Amino acid sequence: MQLLEERIRKDGKVLPGDVLKVNSFLNHQLDAELLDAVGAEIAGLFKDCGVTKVLTAEASGIAIACFVALHLHCPALFAKKSKTSNIGSGVWSAKAHSYTHGNDYTMIVSKEYLSGEDTVLIVDDFLANGSALRALRDLCTEAGAKVAGAGIAIEKTYQGGGDELRAEGLRIESMARIASMDAEDGIRFC
Amino acid sequence: MQLLEERIRKDGKVLPGDVLKVNSFLNHQLDAELLDAVGAEIAGLFKDCGVTKVLTAEASGIAIACFVALHLHCPALFAKKSKTSNIGSGVWSAKAHSYTHGNDYTMIVSKEYLSGEDTVLIVDDFLANGSALRALRDLCTEAGAKVAGAGIAIEKTYQGGGDELRAEGLRIESMARIASMDAEDGIRFC
Repeated sequence: MQLLEERIRKDGKVLPGDVLKVNSFLNHQLDAELLDAVGAEIAGLFKDCGVTKVLTAEASGIAIACFVALHLHCPALFAKKSKTSNIGSGVWSAKAHSYTHGNDYTMIVSKEYLSGEDTVLIVDDFLANGSALRALRDLCTEAGAKVAGAGIAIEKTYQGGGDELRAEGLRIESMARIASMDAEDGIRFC
Repeated sequence: MQLLEERIRKDGKVLPGDVLKVNSFLNHQLDAELLDAVGAEIAGLFKDCGVTKVLTAEASGIAIACFVALHLHCPALFAKKSKTSNIGSGVWSAKAHSYTHGNDYTMIVSKEYLSGEDTVLIVDDFLANGSALRALRDLCTEAGAKVAGAGIAIEKTYQGGGDELRAEGLRIESMARIASMDAEDGIRFC
C-alpha cells in the first residue's frame, strides 16, 4: 500500500536492535486518517469472507482494528494481555512471547465474544516473528472460530514469522512489507 | 446522546461494587459504528476550539479517541500506563490512581508529541472519580499545552469527579450521564 510505505519512508526511524520506530503515526501518536485508509484497504481484501469479528491485541492493534471493523460493519474485539497464566474459566487464552520486552504473556478474550459461530479477521500493527499473530490464531482455534486471515500494517518479512504462518495455511495480507532495513541504508520494501 | 444511552440500557450490566459492565460494545468488544457516532458527536461539540491533538489513555480510550480524531482531522495520542514512576526525561508524566485495580500508576506521553503549541481535547471511555482525567489534564499542563476540554463516553455523575474538574474550569462533555445505578432498579440517566 503506497500511502503507508511513503509514510514509513518519511517518518519511520530505524533504530539499533532492529527497531522500526513509527510511533509518530502508528502506535503512540495515531494518524487517524491514515489508519482509516489502511483499515479500508484491509477490509476491502476480506470483504467477501463473511467476517463476523475483527480480533486484535491491546494496545497498539486497537486503532487499526476499529477502522477495519467500521468498514466491514462488524465488531472489533481486543485481546487483553496478562502476565499471569492463572486465568479464569470465562476466557479463551493463548501464550505469546514478546521479543521487544523479553517476556512471555497470555492473551485473553472473554468467551462471551468469540465462539464457533464466528469468522474472524485478525488485525495487528506489526508482524515480525509471528508470536502475537500465532497466539491470536490459537485463541480462535480454541474457541472453534473460523479464521478468514490476518490483515497487518507492517510486516518485517525477513524475520520469517509471516511465511511460517502462511505455510501453515493462514492467509496474511500486509500493507507494507519490509525486506530489509538499516539505519544507514534505510528501508527496502518487498 | 440518545444512541449511547439506549445501548447502555440494552447491553450494559450493573454488577456489585458499582461496576457498569459495557464490554460488549465499549471496552473489550467494540461496536465501531457506535463509537464512530460517539466520536462524531464529541468532535462536533469541539469543532471550533482549534484542537490540534486528541489525548487519551491506553487501552480502552483508544477506540473513541481515534474516531474523534478522524472527525477533527487531527492526530490522536494515547498515554501509556506504567507501574513505575522511574521514567525517562523524554516524556511528560502524571500520576493517577485506579479504583478498579486499587493501585497507583503513571501516565506517560513522549515529549515529541505534546508541546506548548498544542490545543488538546482529552477523550476517555469513563469518568467516575476523575483520577485518569485529572492526570491527562496535568500532563497537558506540564507540557504547556492548552486544554480545550474533555469528551467522555460515560460519566458516573454521582461519583463527583466530573463536577470537581468542572469547578476547576475544565469543560467536560459527557455523552451519557448516569445519575444512579443499581442491579435491581437499573440505570437512571441525568
